[in-house]
Amino acid sequence: MIKVGIYGASGYTGQELLKILVRHPEAEVVALTSRKYTGMPVSDVYPAFTGLTKQSYIDASADEVASRCDMVFLAVPHGQAMEVAPRFVQQGVKVVDLSADYRLRDVAVYEEWYRPHTSAEFLSQAIYGMPELYRSEIKDATLVANPGCYPTGAILGLAPALRGNVIDTASIIIDSKSGVSGAGREAQVGTLFCEVNEGFKAYKIGAHRHTPEIDQELSSLAGGEVSASFVPHLVPANRGILSTIYARLTADISYTDVLEMYQSFYGEEPFVRVYGDGMYPNIAYVKGSNYCDIGLVLDAKKRRVIIITAIDNLVKGAAGQAVQNMNLMCGFPEDMGLQLVSLFP
Amino acid sequence: MIKVGIYGASGYTGQELLKILVRHPEAEVVALTSRKYTGMPVSDVYPAFTGLTKQSYIDASADEVASRCDMVFLAVPHGQAMEVAPRFVQQGVKVVDLSADYRLRDVAVYEEWYRPHTSAEFLSQAIYGMPELYRSEIKDATLVANPGCYPTGAILGLAPALRGNVIDTASIIIDSKSGVSGAGREAQVGTLFCEVNEGFKAYKIGAHRHTPEIDQELSSLAGGEVSASFVPHLVPANRGILSTIYARLTADISYTDVLEMYQSFYGEEPFVRVYGDGMYPNIAYVKGSNYCDIGLVLDAKKRRVIIITAIDNLVKGAAGQAVQNMNLMCGFPEDMGLQLVSLFP
Amino acid sequence: MIKVGIYGASGYTGQELLKILVRHPEAEVVALTSRKYTGMPVSDVYPAFTGLTKQSYIDASADEVASRCDMVFLAVPHGQAMEVAPRFVQQGVKVVDLSADYRLRDVAVYEEWYRPHTSAEFLSQAIYGMPELYRSEIKDATLVANPGCYPTGAILGLAPALRGNVIDTASIIIDSKSGVSGAGREAQVGTLFCEVNEGFKAYKIGAHRHTPEIDQELSSLAGGEVSASFVPHLVPANRGILSTIYARLTADISYTDVLEMYQSFYGEEPFVRVYGDGMYPNIAYVKGSNYCDIGLVLDAKKRRVIIITAIDNLVKGAAGQAVQNMNLMCGFPEDMGLQLVSLFP
Amino acid sequence: MIKVGIYGASGYTGQELLKILVRHPEAEVVALTSRKYTGMPVSDVYPAFTGLTKQSYIDASADEVASRCDMVFLAVPHGQAMEVAPRFVQQGVKVVDLSADYRLRDVAVYEEWYRPHTSAEFLSQAIYGMPELYRSEIKDATLVANPGCYPTGAILGLAPALRGNVIDTASIIIDSKSGVSGAGREAQVGTLFCEVNEGFKAYKIGAHRHTPEIDQELSSLAGGEVSASFVPHLVPANRGILSTIYARLTADISYTDVLEMYQSFYGEEPFVRVYGDGMYPNIAYVKGSNYCDIGLVLDAKKRRVIIITAIDNLVKGAAGQAVQNMNLMCGFPEDMGLQLVSLFP
Repeated sequence: MIKVGIYGASGYTGQELLKILVRHPEAEVVALTSRKYTGMPVSDVYPAFTGLTKQSYIDASADEVASRCDMVFLAVPHGQAMEVAPRFVQQGVKVVDLSADYRLRDVAVYEEWYRPHTSAEFLSQAIYGMPELYRSEIKDATLVANPGCYPTGAILGLAPALRGNVIDTASIIIDSKSGVSGAGREAQVGTLFCEVNEGFKAYKIGAHRHTPEIDQELSSLAGGEVSASFVPHLVPANRGILSTIYARLTADISYTDVLEMYQSFYGEEPFVRVYGDGMYPNIAYVKGSNYCDIGLVLDAKKRRVIIITAIDNLVKGAAGQAVQNMNLMCGFPEDMGLQLVSLFP
Repeated sequence: MIKVGIYGASGYTGQELLKILVRHPEAEVVALTSRKYTGMPVSDVYPAFTGLTKQSYIDASADEVASRCDMVFLAVPHGQAMEVAPRFVQQGVKVVDLSADYRLRDVAVYEEWYRPHTSAEFLSQAIYGMPELYRSEIKDATLVANPGCYPTGAILGLAPALRGNVIDTASIIIDSKSGVSGAGREAQVGTLFCEVNEGFKAYKIGAHRHTPEIDQELSSLAGGEVSASFVPHLVPANRGILSTIYARLTADISYTDVLEMYQSFYGEEPFVRVYGDGMYPNIAYVKGSNYCDIGLVLDAKKRRVIIITAIDNLVKGAAGQAVQNMNLMCGFPEDMGLQLVSLFP
Repeated sequence: MIKVGIYGASGYTGQELLKILVRHPEAEVVALTSRKYTGMPVSDVYPAFTGLTKQSYIDASADEVASRCDMVFLAVPHGQAMEVAPRFVQQGVKVVDLSADYRLRDVAVYEEWYRPHTSAEFLSQAIYGMPELYRSEIKDATLVANPGCYPTGAILGLAPALRGNVIDTASIIIDSKSGVSGAGREAQVGTLFCEVNEGFKAYKIGAHRHTPEIDQELSSLAGGEVSASFVPHLVPANRGILSTIYARLTADISYTDVLEMYQSFYGEEPFVRVYGDGMYPNIAYVKGSNYCDIGLVLDAKKRRVIIITAIDNLVKGAAGQAVQNMNLMCGFPEDMGLQLVSLFP
Repeated sequence: MIKVGIYGASGYTGQELLKILVRHPEAEVVALTSRKYTGMPVSDVYPAFTGLTKQSYIDASADEVASRCDMVFLAVPHGQAMEVAPRFVQQGVKVVDLSADYRLRDVAVYEEWYRPHTSAEFLSQAIYGMPELYRSEIKDATLVANPGCYPTGAILGLAPALRGNVIDTASIIIDSKSGVSGAGREAQVGTLFCEVNEGFKAYKIGAHRHTPEIDQELSSLAGGEVSASFVPHLVPANRGILSTIYARLTADISYTDVLEMYQSFYGEEPFVRVYGDGMYPNIAYVKGSNYCDIGLVLDAKKRRVIIITAIDNLVKGAAGQAVQNMNLMCGFPEDMGLQLVSLFP
């Protein structure tokens, strides 16, 4: 049984972490911080937790939280995470950071897309927390940078094809559609019910901060620089990201070849499900679960592969993957606490 | 052709007024005020108006707007309306106030539920803008207090029964369910998409400010004090209020009697539709229109009548009824600009 | 480890049972019947089960299923359940019937609201499966009639007040609002997305078949005949029933008295949460969980209590309560497999 | 005043036509056919029409309808339209066919994607009813093939770029997202509320019947064979199609060049709105209107243009465009009856 803190626990990601951890057999949540709700019971802010926890949010420094915990999840915005992460690492507390602060290996890229980095010296020890690609490094890591929600679906969708060297990396288009929880719980006009419901739109085209993160990992997989066209859209649903990914094939391969490539790549993975012919992912099928579902279509005539992935942005795209990383870092079974069955309908 | 201003034009009600007025044959919108969006084109704030208007929001005093207009709609929050309404009235500009400031005839009741009233001397000349009950007074009015959204559905649902003196006024229960646009366009956590979608709840039980307004008009109809139990709920939909109203019958009447009472009461009304046996209103059937639909059920065994009403809260519950009042005040056909067909699905 | 069958496994209730049972430590699902989908893998019909089960639906007689199971859930429509339940009971297989066939103790009432009963002789041994009211009887039962979804919320909401004898039983009004999954997965125009979305309506007023079930249990609690006014409505959401219940107080009691009465009544219950002052239930807070949440308001002036309950109709209103009954019947911990945390948002 | 019939009036498209036509100053609807609802008042099937029409659906042959009408809209499924269209044409009744039966000029392509054609001899006189491309031909036509919903948004989005010869036609990807009303009002499991709500998926990849229609018109615009990759998705919303279109630029042009090309192409069009820099279409902004909104993004680095279009699939994508065609065919002002303001929120 390890002691766990959630630093920044009152956002959607923070409460999703709590939701998983209250049922985790090896984790005890001992600190939930929130400046906004300091002193308030969690169950007043999120009544869904009534009867599940009696804890209240606290306002505590990183050092205070570090002194109580073996492991901490940082669920604060980027910029704030890099202020506190070093405090935890230096005190030997394992960290999974759900912000963007340690995802980009190149500090210049980070600073171009975000802001000046205040603890760049820790970047080199941070591991990108995607178990399907970095499992062994995560096991030994103290500081894990949990992937962004869009990158999770995009990278898992492209990894086998890039590793297999069968697509033209200049041709990659990632058309992603996300539920609204990805925008967080800040009060803003753009995510009001009436602004989103019965609507559908693209946003931040060419300007979304997940773009360099996607490119970093695709480049790493391809062994050369990749710059994908990434267009995010907003779906009037609470949870889920569906990415429809297009790429031109460079190899003369059949649908079966592609399917086998993906099945082989993800064969043993507990949280990736490769669909068979004619089955396509749906965010409704992964809602509340830690799965990434992948569907494949080959347009032989146009020599194009279409890869569709679906995740729950709050689970595999955030809290679930974070707990998966915790399990790896702590030597627990990788799926402990994550045997979540999708809630359909 | 009259010149019209919308004072406070950037909220949902303000833009709904504009939507109706841009197609109104006798009205020309000459002033749209908004402090928040001063100088911005309407079509930047609400792209749905692209190509329909080139106007921008202005920040103008009541006097400035008054000097340009024959008629003004006040779509600012309560408290602000009573600051400016006198300026318009004194300059001979007709006013339809969509706030609560002039709805309650008893200033003490207003001040109990809202705040100190700063222009109480105008209350006596304000007419409650429900054409079905006050048509002739509205025609002669300079200052019309446009009804609240919940009161519109509740009062229209009970008026025939109260005038007919067939129900026990102590037994009235009004269980109302509203779409989210009724909460306005202010950024707040409670009306974020993820907080409302896939949810349903009651709120402000016994504390909603529409309560005294409902009681005032029910009392007037009954010729004696009525205090109904009113419970509002939030529906995960953009528009519409459905009210399910329960009352104990005091007279020994049949379903047919009740139906005829309602059909007779509303026989000539352009915007009230009384449904026949077995047909129940649905907010989807009035969406985007100025109708109030009414369905009736008699539970003979329990001597109870169940009245169901549906309106679009932004139209009959706000902007549509306001234009209906303008038409009456200006001598236009009552349904001018309001021949809106519901948008289903 | 017991062997479990789901008879009629392809509807929403059947798949919800499977969802719970695949994670239940003491249950092994050995038979899933479906005439419509015979031979198809569950994961083809419900892709959410990909990787969770390799089973296919079978078409098997009650006797065949009985020969393989210790316990069976009947998730077929009423009429079909009473055809097969006797076969299971006679072979010593424990039965939880999720249809209405054994809920009404008076066969005449059943036949008035449903159809001729073909196994009325089993009614007397059927226990109404609401653990909060019939726990000890359920433990010894072979045939449990799982409550309807609307009755679950309505009865749990009224039980303490009726047992406490503080309300006028003639005054009870139950205004219920249900998500769409309650209508099942049959293809019908009325539950198409476009017919329901952005709508809200009442339906089957005075004619819903859950009416006699509610009245039966309220009468039992009150120790005398109760006939409540029950009006169901359709909410544009997948899951959840919120019931707003109104009753006139007969006793001179305070809010605190009522709250204590409810807290005391449900003090030890694992799946009932009584909210404190100013907190109201929301279907979003119970989604995916087995909780029934209860909120209380006292309108002292009108001497009326308002009780609000929320459940997930597929969990506490169907599959979850069914597994709770199974746990009791089999001597497992009552919350085994049911430690489901609500999925919010 | 012309006499108009709607042949197949009870589907979503048929009722949308009626919605527009009941307010059209020059059209009188004299026949509404429906086999399914023969004899039923329209207002029983669609209560939104209560008070707007007293007509009932009739079951009438094409000849009977032809004898009463000057113009007919065919809103029956493909296959049925080609059975009756010749009857109307031969009797001098103008026809707008909303099915696919006369959209594809090459009968072999039609038969490959649909079924044997029974009135192929009429194909040569059928005009593809997209006024922005075929206005003059439509004015003289007797038989107009109203475009499909997906093709409308896709073709309008690509027309200026193809005519301008600035994109690589082999690189075109059309990622489209449609609201559910596009699937019609047939009872089917796939479009039940619970199957669609909180979900998002791609479907019929490479197999959607709008594919050849898109390719036909893109080829015509490009002056050479074009075969685009078209992937439709289902959005949990009632109305609207958003298409995100990707193409590689072949010319060295700036964003301003592209914008001007589009503004110039659509300068005088009453129902196309080209958005300026940084503004992207949203289906919520066109809901209930006949507009096609277009947004443009240039990815200079990757030499790719991203074109986003939004329409209401039932209006510009079906009934609205059909009435626009009627107006042209009958010499009415093109926007008569179509001055619909979008319903937002």
